[in-house]
Amino acid sequence: MFRATVLTLFPELFPGPLDASVLGRARADGLWALDTVNIRDFSDNKYGSVDDTPAGGGAGMVMRADILTRAIDAVPRNDRPLLCLSPRGKPLNQTRIHDLSRGAGVIALCGRFEGVDERVFSCRDIEEVSIGDFVLAGGEIAAMALIEACVRLIPAVLGSASSLGEESFEGGLLEYPQYTRPREFEGRAIPDVLLSGDHRKIAEWRRKQAEDITRARRPDLWERYQTRGPIRSEKNKDETS
Amino acid sequence: MFRATVLTLFPELFPGPLDASVLGRARADGLWALDTVNIRDFSDNKYGSVDDTPAGGGAGMVMRADILTRAIDAVPRNDRPLLCLSPRGKPLNQTRIHDLSRGAGVIALCGRFEGVDERVFSCRDIEEVSIGDFVLAGGEIAAMALIEACVRLIPAVLGSASSLGEESFEGGLLEYPQYTRPREFEGRAIPDVLLSGDHRKIAEWRRKQAEDITRARRPDLWERYQTRGPIRSEKNKDETS
Repeated sequence: MFRATVLTLFPELFPGPLDASVLGRARADGLWALDTVNIRDFSDNKYGSVDDTPAGGGAGMVMRADILTRAIDAVPRNDRPLLCLSPRGKPLNQTRIHDLSRGAGVIALCGRFEGVDERVFSCRDIEEVSIGDFVLAGGEIAAMALIEACVRLIPAVLGSASSLGEESFEGGLLEYPQYTRPREFEGRAIPDVLLSGDHRKIAEWRRKQAEDITRARRPDLWERYQTRGPIRSEKNKDETS
Repeated sequence: MFRATVLTLFPELFPGPLDASVLGRARADGLWALDTVNIRDFSDNKYGSVDDTPAGGGAGMVMRADILTRAIDAVPRNDRPLLCLSPRGKPLNQTRIHDLSRGAGVIALCGRFEGVDERVFSCRDIEEVSIGDFVLAGGEIAAMALIEACVRLIPAVLGSASSLGEESFEGGLLEYPQYTRPREFEGRAIPDVLLSGDHRKIAEWRRKQAEDITRARRPDLWERYQTRGPIRSEKNKDETS
């Protein structure tokens, strides 16, 4: 079973939004598990402090290597990668999320303050990963994004698994536009082809729309799509090979 | 004052992690404000449903344009951009976050299910934005990331504003490594230069480290940095011009 363990100074934030809707029901049904480790429990002083001033000067505080590694070493790895959420990390993408979701789970280290003593990364097997090119107040919300993205891909968590194959990044494209009732809204009708019942034409139209949106919005994805052709996730490869 | 309004099917998730630590204290101090709108309140039926099956077939459900626009139209814009969190959106970055943080706030529309009827975007002034190239179960955690990234840049929210100028993406580089006590940890010492007291040498070392890390980890950022030179945020430009 996929297990997420979060090392944080704010364990009370979890599960938080991860308890909503289908993910919350899936956790209640035992499809995945979540636990937290309070880094402060590994402090060596009665104030529970975990940080100190940066060597070389500068504003803010840095999380201490000795305390953080004690917290890290207390968590059973169980074949799970230890990921530190950080804007300096490798950008996460859906291919990586697929890989993670098929594994035993993740251990997510959430930094706060100015960051983490660099020696934590050289002394333990940790990968820095980033959800995007912006800076948060801490790693907690980024860890929630990582965990939610993984868990929704676990078989049986979402009701209809078939919808996963058509969403953004599957096949290397952004998703085509969606429409539903009412048939006309503020003078704009649902495109005729979608009401035609011709499934081949609908599939063609959607593919063309997905290509157009990707080309217009994400030249970087479009270039990769044209160079490498449709990207299939490992999961889909397994299913079709 | 910066005000975030979130349109969601899960208003109970807010403020959630946005109430932790400095952001929570800043909200209590009136430095920013948060409110939510429950999209379900704008349903036209007694079940509170807001979605329907996709035109043209396919798995999942699509959020209806008529109901969503009623919810949108009920929110005072007050010069705030209306952003829909979506993997199809333009990737958010720290420059955009700086721009947003200096404005009146944001209105964040959180999709769920398969997505949102496309006509919502053509009939209202909405920008789709993405926190990263992965798919979440809904827009809520992405909205939290957006709001946290903006709010921490509001003057007086973080204690020492000077630390903002040295973090990742400021100047177009990832942040240099940080160290703190103990001086030696598992056989690894804090680099001598950081203990030298020579502020010019420390600044040079940090700049070189930031360049090395950016070149190694993010060739895309490194190329931009070399082509355009150091990127200064609009805020810094204002201060120095």
